[in-house]
Amino acid sequence: MAGSSFGTIFKLSTFGESHEFAIGGVIDGVPANFELDIEAIQKELDRRKPGQSSIVTQRKESDTVQFLSGIFEGKTTGAPIGFIIPNENQKSKDYDHLKDTFRPSHADFTYQKKFGIRDFNGGGRSSARETACRVVAGAIAKQLLASIGIRFSTYVDQIGEIRFQSTDFFEPTAIEANLVRCPDEKIAVEMENLVREIRKEGDTIGGAIRCVIEYVPIGLGEPVFDKLHADLGKAMLSINAVKGFEIGSGFDSISMRGSQHNDLFNADGTTKTNHSGGIQGGISNGMPISFRVAFKPVATIMQDQLSINTEGEEVTVSGKGRHDACVVPRAVPIVEAMAAITILDFHLRNKSIHL
Amino acid sequence: MAGSSFGTIFKLSTFGESHEFAIGGVIDGVPANFELDIEAIQKELDRRKPGQSSIVTQRKESDTVQFLSGIFEGKTTGAPIGFIIPNENQKSKDYDHLKDTFRPSHADFTYQKKFGIRDFNGGGRSSARETACRVVAGAIAKQLLASIGIRFSTYVDQIGEIRFQSTDFFEPTAIEANLVRCPDEKIAVEMENLVREIRKEGDTIGGAIRCVIEYVPIGLGEPVFDKLHADLGKAMLSINAVKGFEIGSGFDSISMRGSQHNDLFNADGTTKTNHSGGIQGGISNGMPISFRVAFKPVATIMQDQLSINTEGEEVTVSGKGRHDACVVPRAVPIVEAMAAITILDFHLRNKSIHL
Amino acid sequence: MAGSSFGTIFKLSTFGESHEFAIGGVIDGVPANFELDIEAIQKELDRRKPGQSSIVTQRKESDTVQFLSGIFEGKTTGAPIGFIIPNENQKSKDYDHLKDTFRPSHADFTYQKKFGIRDFNGGGRSSARETACRVVAGAIAKQLLASIGIRFSTYVDQIGEIRFQSTDFFEPTAIEANLVRCPDEKIAVEMENLVREIRKEGDTIGGAIRCVIEYVPIGLGEPVFDKLHADLGKAMLSINAVKGFEIGSGFDSISMRGSQHNDLFNADGTTKTNHSGGIQGGISNGMPISFRVAFKPVATIMQDQLSINTEGEEVTVSGKGRHDACVVPRAVPIVEAMAAITILDFHLRNKSIHL
Amino acid sequence: MAGSSFGTIFKLSTFGESHEFAIGGVIDGVPANFELDIEAIQKELDRRKPGQSSIVTQRKESDTVQFLSGIFEGKTTGAPIGFIIPNENQKSKDYDHLKDTFRPSHADFTYQKKFGIRDFNGGGRSSARETACRVVAGAIAKQLLASIGIRFSTYVDQIGEIRFQSTDFFEPTAIEANLVRCPDEKIAVEMENLVREIRKEGDTIGGAIRCVIEYVPIGLGEPVFDKLHADLGKAMLSINAVKGFEIGSGFDSISMRGSQHNDLFNADGTTKTNHSGGIQGGISNGMPISFRVAFKPVATIMQDQLSINTEGEEVTVSGKGRHDACVVPRAVPIVEAMAAITILDFHLRNKSIHL
Repeated sequence: MAGSSFGTIFKLSTFGESHEFAIGGVIDGVPANFELDIEAIQKELDRRKPGQSSIVTQRKESDTVQFLSGIFEGKTTGAPIGFIIPNENQKSKDYDHLKDTFRPSHADFTYQKKFGIRDFNGGGRSSARETACRVVAGAIAKQLLASIGIRFSTYVDQIGEIRFQSTDFFEPTAIEANLVRCPDEKIAVEMENLVREIRKEGDTIGGAIRCVIEYVPIGLGEPVFDKLHADLGKAMLSINAVKGFEIGSGFDSISMRGSQHNDLFNADGTTKTNHSGGIQGGISNGMPISFRVAFKPVATIMQDQLSINTEGEEVTVSGKGRHDACVVPRAVPIVEAMAAITILDFHLRNKSIHL
Repeated sequence: MAGSSFGTIFKLSTFGESHEFAIGGVIDGVPANFELDIEAIQKELDRRKPGQSSIVTQRKESDTVQFLSGIFEGKTTGAPIGFIIPNENQKSKDYDHLKDTFRPSHADFTYQKKFGIRDFNGGGRSSARETACRVVAGAIAKQLLASIGIRFSTYVDQIGEIRFQSTDFFEPTAIEANLVRCPDEKIAVEMENLVREIRKEGDTIGGAIRCVIEYVPIGLGEPVFDKLHADLGKAMLSINAVKGFEIGSGFDSISMRGSQHNDLFNADGTTKTNHSGGIQGGISNGMPISFRVAFKPVATIMQDQLSINTEGEEVTVSGKGRHDACVVPRAVPIVEAMAAITILDFHLRNKSIHL
Repeated sequence: MAGSSFGTIFKLSTFGESHEFAIGGVIDGVPANFELDIEAIQKELDRRKPGQSSIVTQRKESDTVQFLSGIFEGKTTGAPIGFIIPNENQKSKDYDHLKDTFRPSHADFTYQKKFGIRDFNGGGRSSARETACRVVAGAIAKQLLASIGIRFSTYVDQIGEIRFQSTDFFEPTAIEANLVRCPDEKIAVEMENLVREIRKEGDTIGGAIRCVIEYVPIGLGEPVFDKLHADLGKAMLSINAVKGFEIGSGFDSISMRGSQHNDLFNADGTTKTNHSGGIQGGISNGMPISFRVAFKPVATIMQDQLSINTEGEEVTVSGKGRHDACVVPRAVPIVEAMAAITILDFHLRNKSIHL
Repeated sequence: MAGSSFGTIFKLSTFGESHEFAIGGVIDGVPANFELDIEAIQKELDRRKPGQSSIVTQRKESDTVQFLSGIFEGKTTGAPIGFIIPNENQKSKDYDHLKDTFRPSHADFTYQKKFGIRDFNGGGRSSARETACRVVAGAIAKQLLASIGIRFSTYVDQIGEIRFQSTDFFEPTAIEANLVRCPDEKIAVEMENLVREIRKEGDTIGGAIRCVIEYVPIGLGEPVFDKLHADLGKAMLSINAVKGFEIGSGFDSISMRGSQHNDLFNADGTTKTNHSGGIQGGISNGMPISFRVAFKPVATIMQDQLSINTEGEEVTVSGKGRHDACVVPRAVPIVEAMAAITILDFHLRNKSIHL
């Protein structure tokens, strides 16, 4: 029972491997009669695409989305939006050496054992290329949410040990002002230098992304299993390389006292602090939603590593070519996309609370 | 669109408020013809129930489960298992003072705003009492999984700043050897002392739970949205008071290099390290699954707090009676239950991978 | 992967066998803050219960529903409504002779082969007793729908070869005026006589039920798989003994010409004829929804029949005791319940069409 | 909440309008490591495509499927299969006259009212062109099922008042031997003549299709809502123009006695008669599954009809160009496809019955 769909009302189903003909998807449950800005969707894809700057992988893919249905004279019709992103880097011979090899900390081994067959070109279905489809759906969700005032601020909070440690809302211009997408210019320079250094070593490094969502109406989230932060957590943990998720005070709350952690109310129902991260009892409380996502250092490194092949024999895997030394700058639009898909879905779910 | 169901094949749907007649649920998709140990299920409930020791809330509830269907001559029939846990503490007047008050960092405010009505007795549907139903389903899942060799070790990893910091598998006897359910006797004493101290202050404190799952077969987890750790994460984040989830290296991976983080293979397909936490590309790789869950200090404190009422006026909320100074010792069986439900569901999902 | 849930937003999950402790269910997604008439729910159950008149089975079950959650001071809270209907006729020895026998055209054989185990008392999970839970959820759905003006008229259209053949909307009083629930008094007498005759012979006979739903708003139903009549059809076909479903002109449309079948519009968007049965392209068009459901003669007859046992040996099955000679009078509230659940669910689904 | 997905494990999600760029879909949950015959899939599409013979619409569409993912070296990988069927007949001006007009018994009116916007070209999403995607998924399902011995025989049972009235299994060659797809040559000639006559009149006529499925294993179908025939019924009723569904004895069972209708067992568990249509208690019993589907005469006729426009004014709609006088010959592969998708899905669901 496969898992290529996300969402219950606003629902994305994706397909596609790294090196077959195209990746793409179907977005069902799109609210009808809404004017879409197609260019803005492509711009989101450009924020994720390889080759966008000197600190990311230099693999060339234009990642151009083509919409096939569900849009009529510029507006959504309520019918599913089908789309494809052609793979320009198809069917190369680059991966033949991986046919019989399991790379350390890649999904090669688990896919092979699970399915008994594996499309080894570029990681096949396990490639992070798949996340481009999420960015398409997320960009649509963001436009819909923007029309009711909901805004996102997603930025790099940490690379290696360099941490920004803010929970503020920053404007897109501040985030896009540098290559690492950290809105503090000084810290951004440090981060960028670290990434360049790691890159030179042929190594990779982890990072963290903060997402802050403002003007979310009170009431999104469903008792008891579909708490808003539970589904946000699932959304984030489903992104390649993510190892952790925390909402509001998160792991820091472990060593706090209740008397210190409780968010006291103002007369208008807002709270004086926001340890809850904008969600109380699984339901948005009108305060900014704030969460943080941990990314491991990606597994593809430009160094020789010992590994095994499908026969269980020891082999050496050599990194070659192009890689991301740190994935978090490119992961910013992915985190934001999954957040937007989740928030829109819960907004639509919330419409059936009353008759 | 409500969210009272969890799982896709092995599926739990729950109902019940803290102080109405009963809580309960329906478990659908239970594999047929399996002999259940009913007593063992009740024992799991006893590990969660209030009043079990001097460091937890002294509220009295026997939490006795009654099975109503789906079991015939001791065996599962494949029909849904319906069950109830009667509320013995029903309809008290204890909560009348909360009728018009929103307690800080409780779900009072968000439920009232979302639904326009609120069962204020004992927190109604937002009460953690609901998790007893998860323990019932989890206990059944654990028995089924045990029959194919899958074992769970769930224990308290941290209370306040006292941290155990192990990822080892401990036997139930070691975990149940003390009131805080931390398998290190010395650290357990420290933790217990801390809880007693916090309790005396009328305050609460956060904590963390580690869950280690052994002998999970290779192949559980579905690309791309239903990655095994994504659904484990959702399962955990849906538990009351949980603020964070991390798999394997988790947040520590942020500052690691790929060359250091990659789990190199042994010839048999096991790995020399387990930073992945037993899951690679969203699919179990046969290594122990290991994750950690962060709990905030619970909101009910025995101290006066400023708050507001439904009219937006300032009021003082006084804590009274019985509370948990630290919820993690009682949350151990809940974490384990949700883990077991998730693993069993993915085991059953995995059966349809081949024709 | 079991199938004990129905609906997507307004969702019923049921449990229970004919002769275990209780049957019951969880209704999730109930719109909040709606005042329920509990007595009216029980009255619907009374229309389905055995022993209600001289022409139905004389088995005694009071079928009293107990609500356990989700209702606070008489109103729905948005939390799931849990309920049970205790089995008063439990654990009798009446069925021991069926332990090893497969009755013709019962589910004994298929349950045994599918699950490898079977609760043989009273048919276990395959008993039509399960439909009482549908009536509970349906009664709640009907009350909610009545508050927005949607009304149901469900009646017996045919028993054996005696056919009423109307598509009119009849008031409850006319339907409840006789034991067979056919609103034409003269035909009702004929039907009743036929049932008494068949009953005397120890035999059973089939029948058909017509359901007409008025004031359904335009727009319910989802392209392309979840057409409103497709889900109504599934709802009906999931009821025990149902063998056929037709919407509007149904099977009669086969021999019609398009020029004759097309429903021409009036200026206000209503249509001059209603061959469509109130649904066009899978979406309600504002005309009365009208469908017809075929029931086979139930399999339990008071005559000896040849059959086989679990060893594949020939045995004689003797009917004994109490049975329904014709199930359709008691099935009227079940058909209406499933229709109401379906219509409410699609009403709630339709709320997310726009942002 | 949209409805463009069908199935639970083997799940098809479709997109596409009649005259936008392409139609297509994603098939998730495809069993892995199965060798597909791509040509055979195209052949199924050819059986549905317009212009295939002199008695169907002469609209030209090659309906060529392009697979984009999920297939590696000819075999399924377990990853979702994405596919498109480009629209060759795009964006014509043929439909401008329909922009403001609601055609009788079409979905123009209901789509406009539901969504507030409508892609009027060729019927947009409500066009039966969408069913081509079902044929693709169904052709894949049929290949998988054939490998475990399950076979389909789907043929025209009735056109207008000319009825074949068989429940036998016929080989594909017999069915494909004539243009109407009725395996009785003499009746086929009568049917063909009728269609030609109706066509000359610019009118349309209804019909019925029989589907017989052999060698279905015992045990497919889930109590209680997901009975096998309930989901087959939904599958069929979701096809454009379908007005009725009956399983086994169907509507004829209404006037039968139980003593006559019960299927007596043979010693091997087969039954002497098959009034049940191969399904007992919602679960396949190993006998051939047999059902019948009623199609109305399609709404597009080549005659002038009175109708209304979006302003509620009376207008005359003139049929022009190309149409199907009777849709059932082209609907045969669609019925078979939906049956195959349903049976495969339940086969996969049944795999989780035991641990």
